[in-house]
Amino acid sequence: MDYFAGIEAGGTKFSCIIANGPESIIAEATFPTTVPEQTLPQITEYIKQKVTMNGIRLTAAGLSCFGPVDLNPDSPTYGYITTTPKLKWRNYPILKYLQDNLDVPMKFETDVNGAALGEGTWGAAQGLSDYVYITVGTGIGGGIIHDHRPLYGMTHPEIGHMKIQPHPDDHFPGNCPYHTTCLEGLANAPALTARWKVDPATLPDDHPAWDFEAYYLGQAIHNLILVCSPKRIILGGGVLKRRGLIEKVRTESIRILNGYIETSYLDDIDHYIVPPALGDRAGALGAIALLTA
Amino acid sequence: MDYFAGIEAGGTKFSCIIANGPESIIAEATFPTTVPEQTLPQITEYIKQKVTMNGIRLTAAGLSCFGPVDLNPDSPTYGYITTTPKLKWRNYPILKYLQDNLDVPMKFETDVNGAALGEGTWGAAQGLSDYVYITVGTGIGGGIIHDHRPLYGMTHPEIGHMKIQPHPDDHFPGNCPYHTTCLEGLANAPALTARWKVDPATLPDDHPAWDFEAYYLGQAIHNLILVCSPKRIILGGGVLKRRGLIEKVRTESIRILNGYIETSYLDDIDHYIVPPALGDRAGALGAIALLTA
Repeated sequence: MDYFAGIEAGGTKFSCIIANGPESIIAEATFPTTVPEQTLPQITEYIKQKVTMNGIRLTAAGLSCFGPVDLNPDSPTYGYITTTPKLKWRNYPILKYLQDNLDVPMKFETDVNGAALGEGTWGAAQGLSDYVYITVGTGIGGGIIHDHRPLYGMTHPEIGHMKIQPHPDDHFPGNCPYHTTCLEGLANAPALTARWKVDPATLPDDHPAWDFEAYYLGQAIHNLILVCSPKRIILGGGVLKRRGLIEKVRTESIRILNGYIETSYLDDIDHYIVPPALGDRAGALGAIALLTA
Repeated sequence: MDYFAGIEAGGTKFSCIIANGPESIIAEATFPTTVPEQTLPQITEYIKQKVTMNGIRLTAAGLSCFGPVDLNPDSPTYGYITTTPKLKWRNYPILKYLQDNLDVPMKFETDVNGAALGEGTWGAAQGLSDYVYITVGTGIGGGIIHDHRPLYGMTHPEIGHMKIQPHPDDHFPGNCPYHTTCLEGLANAPALTARWKVDPATLPDDHPAWDFEAYYLGQAIHNLILVCSPKRIILGGGVLKRRGLIEKVRTESIRILNGYIETSYLDDIDHYIVPPALGDRAGALGAIALLTA
């Protein structure tokens, strides 16, 4: 039988699923993101082994990849990770490595566009034309779907690096090597660790860390609403697993917007800012959604 | 002969042009934005008088209007100005007034979408699929054109109200009644007046006022690039008439992006951030572009 492989290349781990959709998963695994020479052979060996073991045929593979990446098929560096702060992966031809080793047709997207399309195909944004998927983890990124397709202009969006205002009581200087105090530099998981000098998992649910986090994500959502006006915002990633955080982000977003935008969508904020429905599988299933669209 | 009327309803003044394009203007005038009961009859009387005087036929009219406005034709408040800080115009059915009094078919857009389409049809963005038009005056707004059409989702964008970081040496508290220190609250013309306690026209070209202004507009352009990735940014409005300001904004935008986005567009920043080609006529001609598209 014919199957697809979906690979999500993330800043912390790679996820891989062999399936035709969320109801037909025959294998899935994750591998830590170390260096290309270690992580990528683990992925391709895993896929080839599972294909053989299950007696299936692999017809295509999708890759949704952390970025920035070059998505322009006419570019000599198409399929490369480009100016990432992860130095071992900078200017790395990830698509070529996987295509050479899996030997099937492949499609390529940003990790967040892949996850966004997965959520649109099978998850929290089914039926919507315009929505945003945001993930908050080692990095912060977002996929913007406009008129059912990933928004793409000069290049793909990189919403994690938008400038927002530091909280007046936050003395953490920001950790983005490019922008210091952009959203990612203030609110990614390493910023939580560096600001509070503990593993953020050990912070209680009522720690001010989560108020700061909501303050930053609320501003980012405010800016996204004012720039691209999505009909829903899916807010995922490891940091959003914290109990109560999405509720704080909803409250902060409404507080910051302060009534300036009046729509029925915002009147129902619990269904406007929502968690992913595909959970940790959004990225890898999204890479499969690229192939089934 | 058949002509169109283009009306730009702006925060400071209304501009009106009777033409079929920039090469065929037969009448144009501006009127101060006071209250609807005064400004709107001036516009409709002017148009009717010019139509009669010139022996022409008016076939349609376009209105590009300051906002927020209700652009949803299915809404009971379609064609209304909604939550504007200009209280006399709040919840005002401007389209209905003009349609009732001009008695021709009309099209309706935001002021900035109108100007953006004008620049795309006849001006600084001809041939481009994805670009942004920003105007900096009494208010700050922007029209985002994606795939040749105004970007529209839950509602229209309101980029002037995005949150950005105040300059560390700026002690002006911001003047936006909704968001205090959003882009508009920090960088519109009234903020310049309030911060420096003089008419900004009297400030010399090398006054720090213009460094602050570039700091704010550079951040806004950074955020726009990271969210919607336009292929060109047209930067207009009264404040941008200041000599040397657009050059400062180009420098600040590149400084803030700090090499994170690498594209040939940004390598040629003088042709990436550009002034409007239609000058003060962009808005009213854009209202005509709505009719000729």
